[in-house]
Amino acid sequence: CSSSTAEILQDDEETFKILIATDVHLGYLEKDAIRGNDSYNTLNEILNCAKTNKVDFILLGGDLFHDNKPSRRCLHNCITMLRRYCMGDSPIHFNILSDQTVNFNTTQFPWVNYQDENLNISIPVFSIHGNHDDPTGAEGLCALDLLGASGLINHFGHSNSVERIEISPILMQKGNTKLALYGLGSIPDERLYRMFVNKQVTMLRPKEDPDEWFNLFAIHQNRSKHGPTNYIPEQFLDDFLDLVVWGHEHECLITPTRNEQQLFYVTQPGSSVATSLSPGEATKKHIGLLRVKGRKKMNLEKIPLKTVRQFFIQDVVLADYQDLFTPDTPQVTKKVENLCHAKVTEMLEEAERERLGCPLTPEKPLIRLRVDYSGGFDTFNTSRFSQKFVDRVANPKDIIHFLRRREQKEDIKDEVNVDYGKLVKTTAAEGLRVEDLVKQYFQAAEQTVQLSLLTEQGMGKAIQEFVDKDEKDAIEELITYQLEKTQRHLQARGVTTEQDIDTEIRLFRDSKKNTTEEENEIREAINRAKAHRLERGDNPGDKDISDDFADVTMDSDEGSVPFPPPTRGRGRGGRGRGGRGRGRGELSAMNMKRLQL
Amino acid sequence: CSSSTAEILQDDEETFKILIATDVHLGYLEKDAIRGNDSYNTLNEILNCAKTNKVDFILLGGDLFHDNKPSRRCLHNCITMLRRYCMGDSPIHFNILSDQTVNFNTTQFPWVNYQDENLNISIPVFSIHGNHDDPTGAEGLCALDLLGASGLINHFGHSNSVERIEISPILMQKGNTKLALYGLGSIPDERLYRMFVNKQVTMLRPKEDPDEWFNLFAIHQNRSKHGPTNYIPEQFLDDFLDLVVWGHEHECLITPTRNEQQLFYVTQPGSSVATSLSPGEATKKHIGLLRVKGRKKMNLEKIPLKTVRQFFIQDVVLADYQDLFTPDTPQVTKKVENLCHAKVTEMLEEAERERLGCPLTPEKPLIRLRVDYSGGFDTFNTSRFSQKFVDRVANPKDIIHFLRRREQKEDIKDEVNVDYGKLVKTTAAEGLRVEDLVKQYFQAAEQTVQLSLLTEQGMGKAIQEFVDKDEKDAIEELITYQLEKTQRHLQARGVTTEQDIDTEIRLFRDSKKNTTEEENEIREAINRAKAHRLERGDNPGDKDISDDFADVTMDSDEGSVPFPPPTRGRGRGGRGRGGRGRGRGELSAMNMKRLQL
Repeated sequence: CSSSTAEILQDDEETFKILIATDVHLGYLEKDAIRGNDSYNTLNEILNCAKTNKVDFILLGGDLFHDNKPSRRCLHNCITMLRRYCMGDSPIHFNILSDQTVNFNTTQFPWVNYQDENLNISIPVFSIHGNHDDPTGAEGLCALDLLGASGLINHFGHSNSVERIEISPILMQKGNTKLALYGLGSIPDERLYRMFVNKQVTMLRPKEDPDEWFNLFAIHQNRSKHGPTNYIPEQFLDDFLDLVVWGHEHECLITPTRNEQQLFYVTQPGSSVATSLSPGEATKKHIGLLRVKGRKKMNLEKIPLKTVRQFFIQDVVLADYQDLFTPDTPQVTKKVENLCHAKVTEMLEEAERERLGCPLTPEKPLIRLRVDYSGGFDTFNTSRFSQKFVDRVANPKDIIHFLRRREQKEDIKDEVNVDYGKLVKTTAAEGLRVEDLVKQYFQAAEQTVQLSLLTEQGMGKAIQEFVDKDEKDAIEELITYQLEKTQRHLQARGVTTEQDIDTEIRLFRDSKKNTTEEENEIREAINRAKAHRLERGDNPGDKDISDDFADVTMDSDEGSVPFPPPTRGRGRGGRGRGGRGRGRGELSAMNMKRLQL
Repeated sequence: CSSSTAEILQDDEETFKILIATDVHLGYLEKDAIRGNDSYNTLNEILNCAKTNKVDFILLGGDLFHDNKPSRRCLHNCITMLRRYCMGDSPIHFNILSDQTVNFNTTQFPWVNYQDENLNISIPVFSIHGNHDDPTGAEGLCALDLLGASGLINHFGHSNSVERIEISPILMQKGNTKLALYGLGSIPDERLYRMFVNKQVTMLRPKEDPDEWFNLFAIHQNRSKHGPTNYIPEQFLDDFLDLVVWGHEHECLITPTRNEQQLFYVTQPGSSVATSLSPGEATKKHIGLLRVKGRKKMNLEKIPLKTVRQFFIQDVVLADYQDLFTPDTPQVTKKVENLCHAKVTEMLEEAERERLGCPLTPEKPLIRLRVDYSGGFDTFNTSRFSQKFVDRVANPKDIIHFLRRREQKEDIKDEVNVDYGKLVKTTAAEGLRVEDLVKQYFQAAEQTVQLSLLTEQGMGKAIQEFVDKDEKDAIEELITYQLEKTQRHLQARGVTTEQDIDTEIRLFRDSKKNTTEEENEIREAINRAKAHRLERGDNPGDKDISDDFADVTMDSDEGSVPFPPPTRGRGRGGRGRGGRGRGRGELSAMNMKRLQL
């Protein structure tokens, strides 16, 4: 692990050293011949980095697992790595002062793993759950709880109530440094938004000396606005916080940015594996080494991940190449293809240069060329195109993504909402809600609950048909697509009775739509479908619904403020903290029960 | 835990004390409101018993898990119980002398868990896998391997080769007692049978002092003959063995019986939960406390399980009650129902008496009344009948099982084979094998791999239709039924591509048919279907295919020889052991590689 940025705090007996990572998405594409081990290799790197750096603990921001029910291989790999790296003789140098039965309420072993006398833990891992690995079923257990019951991690931030959330911190002390670690596992954004608005979310603080604590908060929600209430505004979070570790968003924006209203910092480590080929995922992946000394000094060292597969993305607007071709140029499609070939080759060469001297970087990069063919251009056969790069690119089949952004750019955001609305309205007009259709579907299956395991090809095909048909059909196909996604989701959760399904579908529709990930998933699926279609030699028609979805979530948070040196400008006394009640501050003045100070 | 039988060896520094159990079937019916916790409660009892008795280790004979992919709750419960009971400060008093990288080859921690310096194990668990929790997928991992990777159990007896099995014992020493623990995880019976016949199975023995070892072998196969090669004859096993712990068979025949040809003993502990309502499961459930001292003294103490739900089964042959009624008696059906009511009440009263003073025994027993209505009797409405016992019986819906054994008894065994053969022939005549039908089925699902989650009702319905229709239809339904079973099986294994499915189906059909469990499953399903039909008030027609399947596997091994006192009559020297090469003895003379004596 190499270092970077700013002044670094000394490692000493007063300084917490915390490895910060999120969205490891273990098991992502694990069946892919090329990329199958990517997520595993990177967790291995992260844990190894924690060990090498002798951190006090690891903090994970959710989505350790990509699937709610990880495969046996995935669990086995995870357990094996945690046991290998996080067990051992290195002593732990911090104490926990809070009531652990409150902090660790998901297993029957409600204490931190390193204090269990039967386990020899060298690096405690603290993790909240994400939306991918959230608790399900009557027992409210998630995959993390299997690791928790085994004593391999400490799952925290699980709220059992849907009516009231009280976030009780894990109070840690190392030397004289006091760290209050708050966590909130993923909750559907709209529900959590509502709960914040209704003042149902409380962050508890120690009664005594509340200002002596460095307050660290791990959260896993939408940070970008995906709809009026489909994200969590930073302003909702208590202003007594010092640093927020924001999971769920995959773009690495790990350098802490200061929220000037709440006066806390936010770090967004981003995922450690690209789960979509969108620009956000192309940002170089990092994890963080957070040092905290006393309540005024912190520093976040960025550590680039070496095992992450390179990902290059470029845009080409065909209309910008009038010196080379116009739609009327003879053999224009061939020329366009040549241009794209040159662009991809260029990216590949850049990837190769960058990879020099990086033995851990996988050989084949991910490449995405987004081709805006607006203005009368045709698309070319991507199947033949793919063949040329099959040995050099990790995703040969979906390198090219055709879109017609220029013409439709203005409408895109609205279109998505309108489309979904239209869909619901259409069916409502016929006296059918989507739920009814779902119900009908299952009834039609003659009491046998048919849950489809949608293979990649299957999904591709569904969407391909969806793209090919006229609007009326398309809407039906869209319903089917939603159904299939829902079913996959249900199956992942092991839902089997019809009542459960009904409930789950509502929950699912409430919570999962309009997230970046969801949109990316749809876009990727559509893209694959187009690739399939183009492989068959079809040309995309004028009515191309897929474009309505494409490139919706390209908004990036790249304009982040560089992190100011931690030892200056962080004077907190002057900011008059402690029960001020400004903004959402009234939430922060609560007494903390069961405090053991 | 209370004791029983024979002279008991003293617990001393020279005596191995081993808790023996098998077929725990964790997670069986876990969604059932009444019986859902049965399997968990009994594992808890077993582990608690091991702790109370301060055993040296626990030996499990396979099928710890009922499902190949246990639910999250199931894994969580299992992990929690193992961590609670098997971790702690009690020292371990035996050493392992063999090469552990050979013994424990399924995790990346190839050593016994109690020697791991990061784990504080008080009771090591050694387990082979069964047919329910057998390894699957490219990695060949099974659910036990998750526990193994976590350090909670020691999975052994996993053979990686399909061409040659070399069973290398775990060599243990306690004081002067030397114990060689052999294990062989479940393998499809016919394949293993063939391998034995082809001399592809070898049990390795220590080169030095091979006769000083007490040789204990754990196996999980059919012990009863279910077809010419669909079981493992005891005679196949090497005669140097001293005791075989036979898993898979659910009837508790734990008192060791002597094989007079091979001169070893066999103990069949049986399942710790009834997974079918057949007579074998009604035998009182026990686990064993095996004591071994030196190579000549062993004793198996039977320990009755207290948490096991009572199960009473009785047969009624209506034709035997000519003093009460004949088919021509007015209101005969009402009289028959009254008789059955009396019989069930009788069993319930017996259950209640037995349960007195047994606070751990679940309140509601399992009750099965098999009613032979041959000779012109009609069945009655079991739905109304069930209502009367809904508060007192754990299985109110399927108490009554109508059958017409008398008339068909002679043909039953043949019928099953003939039926299946006919089925295959019929389809073959039309140029279709079952495999083709399976393939067609999946192709028809339009590249979307449709795997059905067959609910209980769904299965009931399928079989009900199967029972209602004429022969031609019935055969089609039977194919469907087989398909659905196959699919459930595939889904449990996470098989998703068509090639895999094809392979798996063949494996499945090769291996799983004709086992006791399979037959019991079919019988139970048919019984449920009949219950459903009768609930609707239908009378069973004359053509009742279900009877062909009923009561096929009632053969029990109850005539077992009592266990002779272990300290006499076990003089081994006189039996001329050591490379005699009698029967399958030639397999036993192999050198053991990598030996560490």
